[in-house]
Amino acid sequence: MDELEIDAVAEVELDDPVLVEGLPGVGHVGTLAVEHLLEELEGESTLVRRIYSREFPPQVSVEDGVSSLTGAEIHAVEVPDGRDLLLLTGDHQAQSNAGHYTLTDAFLDVAEEFGATEVYALGGVPTGELIEEYAVVGAVSDESLLEALEDAGVEFREDEPAGGIVGVSGLLLGLGERRGFEATCLMGETSGYLVDPKSARAVLEVLEAVLGFELDYESLDERADEMEEVIGKIQEMEQQQGMDVPTDDDLRYIG
Amino acid sequence: MDELEIDAVAEVELDDPVLVEGLPGVGHVGTLAVEHLLEELEGESTLVRRIYSREFPPQVSVEDGVSSLTGAEIHAVEVPDGRDLLLLTGDHQAQSNAGHYTLTDAFLDVAEEFGATEVYALGGVPTGELIEEYAVVGAVSDESLLEALEDAGVEFREDEPAGGIVGVSGLLLGLGERRGFEATCLMGETSGYLVDPKSARAVLEVLEAVLGFELDYESLDERADEMEEVIGKIQEMEQQQGMDVPTDDDLRYIG
Amino acid sequence: MDELEIDAVAEVELDDPVLVEGLPGVGHVGTLAVEHLLEELEGESTLVRRIYSREFPPQVSVEDGVSSLTGAEIHAVEVPDGRDLLLLTGDHQAQSNAGHYTLTDAFLDVAEEFGATEVYALGGVPTGELIEEYAVVGAVSDESLLEALEDAGVEFREDEPAGGIVGVSGLLLGLGERRGFEATCLMGETSGYLVDPKSARAVLEVLEAVLGFELDYESLDERADEMEEVIGKIQEMEQQQGMDVPTDDDLRYIG
Amino acid sequence: MDELEIDAVAEVELDDPVLVEGLPGVGHVGTLAVEHLLEELEGESTLVRRIYSREFPPQVSVEDGVSSLTGAEIHAVEVPDGRDLLLLTGDHQAQSNAGHYTLTDAFLDVAEEFGATEVYALGGVPTGELIEEYAVVGAVSDESLLEALEDAGVEFREDEPAGGIVGVSGLLLGLGERRGFEATCLMGETSGYLVDPKSARAVLEVLEAVLGFELDYESLDERADEMEEVIGKIQEMEQQQGMDVPTDDDLRYIG
Repeated sequence: MDELEIDAVAEVELDDPVLVEGLPGVGHVGTLAVEHLLEELEGESTLVRRIYSREFPPQVSVEDGVSSLTGAEIHAVEVPDGRDLLLLTGDHQAQSNAGHYTLTDAFLDVAEEFGATEVYALGGVPTGELIEEYAVVGAVSDESLLEALEDAGVEFREDEPAGGIVGVSGLLLGLGERRGFEATCLMGETSGYLVDPKSARAVLEVLEAVLGFELDYESLDERADEMEEVIGKIQEMEQQQGMDVPTDDDLRYIG
Repeated sequence: MDELEIDAVAEVELDDPVLVEGLPGVGHVGTLAVEHLLEELEGESTLVRRIYSREFPPQVSVEDGVSSLTGAEIHAVEVPDGRDLLLLTGDHQAQSNAGHYTLTDAFLDVAEEFGATEVYALGGVPTGELIEEYAVVGAVSDESLLEALEDAGVEFREDEPAGGIVGVSGLLLGLGERRGFEATCLMGETSGYLVDPKSARAVLEVLEAVLGFELDYESLDERADEMEEVIGKIQEMEQQQGMDVPTDDDLRYIG
Repeated sequence: MDELEIDAVAEVELDDPVLVEGLPGVGHVGTLAVEHLLEELEGESTLVRRIYSREFPPQVSVEDGVSSLTGAEIHAVEVPDGRDLLLLTGDHQAQSNAGHYTLTDAFLDVAEEFGATEVYALGGVPTGELIEEYAVVGAVSDESLLEALEDAGVEFREDEPAGGIVGVSGLLLGLGERRGFEATCLMGETSGYLVDPKSARAVLEVLEAVLGFELDYESLDERADEMEEVIGKIQEMEQQQGMDVPTDDDLRYIG
Repeated sequence: MDELEIDAVAEVELDDPVLVEGLPGVGHVGTLAVEHLLEELEGESTLVRRIYSREFPPQVSVEDGVSSLTGAEIHAVEVPDGRDLLLLTGDHQAQSNAGHYTLTDAFLDVAEEFGATEVYALGGVPTGELIEEYAVVGAVSDESLLEALEDAGVEFREDEPAGGIVGVSGLLLGLGERRGFEATCLMGETSGYLVDPKSARAVLEVLEAVLGFELDYESLDERADEMEEVIGKIQEMEQQQGMDVPTDDDLRYIG
């Protein structure tokens, strides 16, 4: 295994595609969003690249007894009424600081290969409490990108995200800018409970507005209802037992 | 010391051998199993390769006052009534994520050198409690391998192993598959108490079925009896003292 | 991203400049001092170099919605009545031991490029308690540098700093000496409360004495007053509540 | 700073010298022993090599205001009535696993350069309690070395050192053996209190027997008396106060 091994699984001609990243992070918001895109656009999607690296954790996942080496996948999607997409998914982030740089450069290499010049990194920003309204907070690689996103409802807040953006999402902006990409990070507010389908939906609605496609949200909404039930039961427990049960903080999902 | 140094200690002509890995892991199951194979097949075994690496911990073990540098060993075994074997043993795993990749590639290089195309990674899967029946859970690099192993009594369970397979055992499947090997991981159920000779036996019985050799288990059974005595005494202590004695969890051996 | 990427943003002819380093450290003393220099000498400053590295943490900071990749900056300053300066600032130190060596060599490379042969590393030395007088403790790469600094009021103490000087500041002395630089580390005493503008001022007054420029301290003094208010309020809390409130140690800023 | 930088400070012709290593470790035994050798043989010693590396911690020590970059030193000693020596000292060990390999190879490179074929790694083995008799436990790279050392009073114990020998001392045996050196590790028993001059003396007495020189122990004995006073006072404290004062374990020096 070299530092990086990129398997070309298939080739697809895309027209000015947009790279959309959904690696694991806070509230699994990015992962949920991109997986939902893959489900809804299954008919138009083709797996084009598998990316392996000694920077990924040394393990295999097992499904139905068959192993899969840790890696990331990129699907090419020819969207009927919207921008073509390159969807980036994976189960793990890099395991070292330098590894994040290596992997982000690899993802941008693939994006360049397919003629992409725009990147959307999707993630969550934790609010620390349950919320009713799901705003989408943004960050961009260049101020020229602010206006269109504000029109699409993205909020650019003065002190957020506090501490900046860490990992591949942050580096897609940082390295993307140096390599000539227009990069945007969309972060759905999330309490952080395990996974947050409502936050993923909020982020996808922004993408719909800027990239032109239309999505059905039935399956995401079902997952949202399931999560609400879980949250409700936990809060009942808290009230009934009135003891040291897991607090909101304990239950918060830190991706 | 280069990143990798492989000493060719001897050469042996093997016929379509199978690499069997028994590096340290949960319950020391893999190590016990392969060490038992080496004992039982001592007359047919030849040490062929010693593998050293700066990825191994920087230390020597000492026996009777004489030092040995940390490394792994591969023995070639010409089995009378079964498949030829390459037996991989060692006292330590790699100390870094990237190191696991480096070492696994080295083991597969040696396997290729001897004409092997099949790999068995042996280990344990912790049950979290004492058990009476010892099932062997499996994972394979390709679904074509499932049937023969199911016939040999291996169980392929839907949600196991949870979290996948980490370390060299997992990478022998992941990297093995990419390099054209047929790779299988056999994991004996184990409570995790220190070492588990009964679990090692269960795994070896599967190997006997698929690789054709026959083993005597007297010495392994003796070790199993010793372990049962130890476990029994600890449980007596728990009952008599009724205080905060080491729990099952505390005694569980995490390899 | 290579191990190191240095962007030449502009070129300025300097005359025998002095490299002054103010990366994050104890009490943020160095950072405050160099940032104050940049404010006061804004008219004479030009950003000349941006330094990026996979040794920096993999993240971007976000200001007004626009991202900036983690890195260090060097400004060239043509000081009217004093020595020309190269001012080194940044938000983060290297994230690995070897990384500190890599980055320090890069900073010295830029210094050489601009003809510098002298280096001042600025930082803080924690006293562990609130102080009234702010001494500046020093360390030099060669004993020939001691006298002039003692004349400027720097204290060279027998057992300080205990444990030596760690990180880029220490290596600017260690590697600087090997590369022919005259290197000095000036450490302002500080209790360690968050940031210490008084300590930064003490260090800057030494630089004024040795490098010939004159600074106005109004904005630093304002910050010092703000800090005193904060400290006062915390101490009130301690007295009023008489319970386990954060101690001096808990409030101490470890940069 | 390259991975390794070796400064040739002086050249000395030695006759079949022995490399003696005294880097920091348990009880500081090795360090004390080699520093005592340097003191006693000062007239015959010449600093020949300084070794720097990005594998050492990124820091400088400061003495009388002047900085020294972290590194190791090798002195050549032309001993009047005994074997010539190469004495290896330093304040720190490598900071990474691979770093131990790098540095040990560098030390052996210098040893080869001076024509050495024998190595003595000096250290301590913790007993976990105060002791009256100070045995010296040994480990060798080849069994042919056992007899002469047993004659000199070294003990080779069946189960010691438990866990082997870690770090440069262990690798001097492990890598030394691979590179054709005869390597021995001498470990003085020590309770582990801070530093143990009595243990250092026991180890030096073995070296005297095998390498032919004669040492005066007055300064080491003085340090031993100081240590006994300190230990006595701590034990008084324990008795008088009968509370949770630092136990033997808390005071034990782990190098």
